[in-house]
Amino acid sequence: MSIDKKLYRSGPYKDLFAQGVQVGNVLYLSGQVGVDDKGKAGEDLTAQTTLAYASIKRVLSEFGAGMENIVDETFFVTNMTEFMGSVEGVYTARAEAYGGTPEVSQTVVQVVALVQPDLKIEIKCVAQL
Amino acid sequence: MSIDKKLYRSGPYKDLFAQGVQVGNVLYLSGQVGVDDKGKAGEDLTAQTTLAYASIKRVLSEFGAGMENIVDETFFVTNMTEFMGSVEGVYTARAEAYGGTPEVSQTVVQVVALVQPDLKIEIKCVAQL
Amino acid sequence: MSIDKKLYRSGPYKDLFAQGVQVGNVLYLSGQVGVDDKGKAGEDLTAQTTLAYASIKRVLSEFGAGMENIVDETFFVTNMTEFMGSVEGVYTARAEAYGGTPEVSQTVVQVVALVQPDLKIEIKCVAQL
Repeated sequence: MSIDKKLYRSGPYKDLFAQGVQVGNVLYLSGQVGVDDKGKAGEDLTAQTTLAYASIKRVLSEFGAGMENIVDETFFVTNMTEFMGSVEGVYTARAEAYGGTPEVSQTVVQVVALVQPDLKIEIKCVAQL
Repeated sequence: MSIDKKLYRSGPYKDLFAQGVQVGNVLYLSGQVGVDDKGKAGEDLTAQTTLAYASIKRVLSEFGAGMENIVDETFFVTNMTEFMGSVEGVYTARAEAYGGTPEVSQTVVQVVALVQPDLKIEIKCVAQL
Repeated sequence: MSIDKKLYRSGPYKDLFAQGVQVGNVLYLSGQVGVDDKGKAGEDLTAQTTLAYASIKRVLSEFGAGMENIVDETFFVTNMTEFMGSVEGVYTARAEAYGGTPEVSQTVVQVVALVQPDLKIEIKCVAQL
C-alpha cells in the first residue's frame, strides 16, 4: 500500500533516516539533539535545549511549518537531577524558541544515554500541519 | 502555518505544557503519573497505575472522550523486575480503568527516572476522537 | 465517544494489548522485540533487529500494509556502546527489511531494560495507510 510521503533529509545520517516525514497533515520529526552546525554539543543543558529547538525549527521550516505546529514533545534527558536544577534555564530557552507559551503536551523521562556521550537532552516532536 | 488546537491545561505545570492537545481527531496526552490530588505518589506500582489512569480519564473527559478512545500506550517504568513482579496487580488496575480488555497497542520500557524520585510508572497515551 | 478501531492481537499477551491498532489511516504498532516464533531472543543486536523487523512486517501485513507505510521509528536499545559498535550490521539488517532506504524519522535512546533481560532492542513504529 503506497502512501504519499514528504521527507526532509539532512546531516551525516541522511541515508539512514529523515529528519522529518509528513503524510497528510501529520509530521513526525526525528529526535533532535543539542549540537551546533559542526556537531559540537552545547556546553550545558540550557545551551543544548536552545540548539535542539533551533534544529527543530529548521526541520519544521522545510515543511512550511513553525513551532506553533508542534502538538507533542517527549524530552529524553540523561540526568533528571541536573534537569530539575536547570529547569528555569531550560524552560526559558524553550519559551524563547516557541515565542511564548507552548501549546503542546509533554513527557519527560531520564534515559541512560543518547547517541553521543556528551548529549544531555533529545527532543522528539510530533507536529500537525 | 496556524492550526486549530484544543488544549487542556491543569496542575502546577500548566504554564509549561498542556495535559492534552487535540488537533482534528487526534489527541496527544502528556505522560500521566501516579499521584493523587495533593501530588502524593501512590505507595506501590499498582496504586500508582490506578492513579495514573484516573488522571488519563480526567484529561480524556475534557475532550468528551473516554478510555475507549485510547489507541496507543507507552509505559515508562523505573524497575522492570518490580513491574514484572506486580504485573497481575498492574494489569488488573488497568482492566478496571478500561472497563474491560483494552483495545490499544502498548510498549513497556524501563527508564532511569521519572520527574519525581518516588514515581514508578508514567503512562503516555495517544487517543483518537 | 466510540471510534472504529481495527485490531490485530497475537502472542502470549494478546489479552493485554494488540500488536497493532488502526483508526482511520493511522496505525500504531506495539514495540516489537527480537525474538523468534518460540520466544527465543536473537543472539546479538543484528539478529534481534532482523527478528524485530520480521515481527513488524507481520503486524503490518495484517492491515494490508508494508514497510513503506512506516513513518516513524523509535529504537529503545539497552547498550548504546554496543549499538554504535554494531551499527553497520543493524542498519544493514534494517535496509534489508525495508528493501532499500527507509523513508522514516528515527529516534534512538538507551533505556535500562526491556521486557526480557536478554533483549537488546525494541522498535516502536507508527505507520500510515
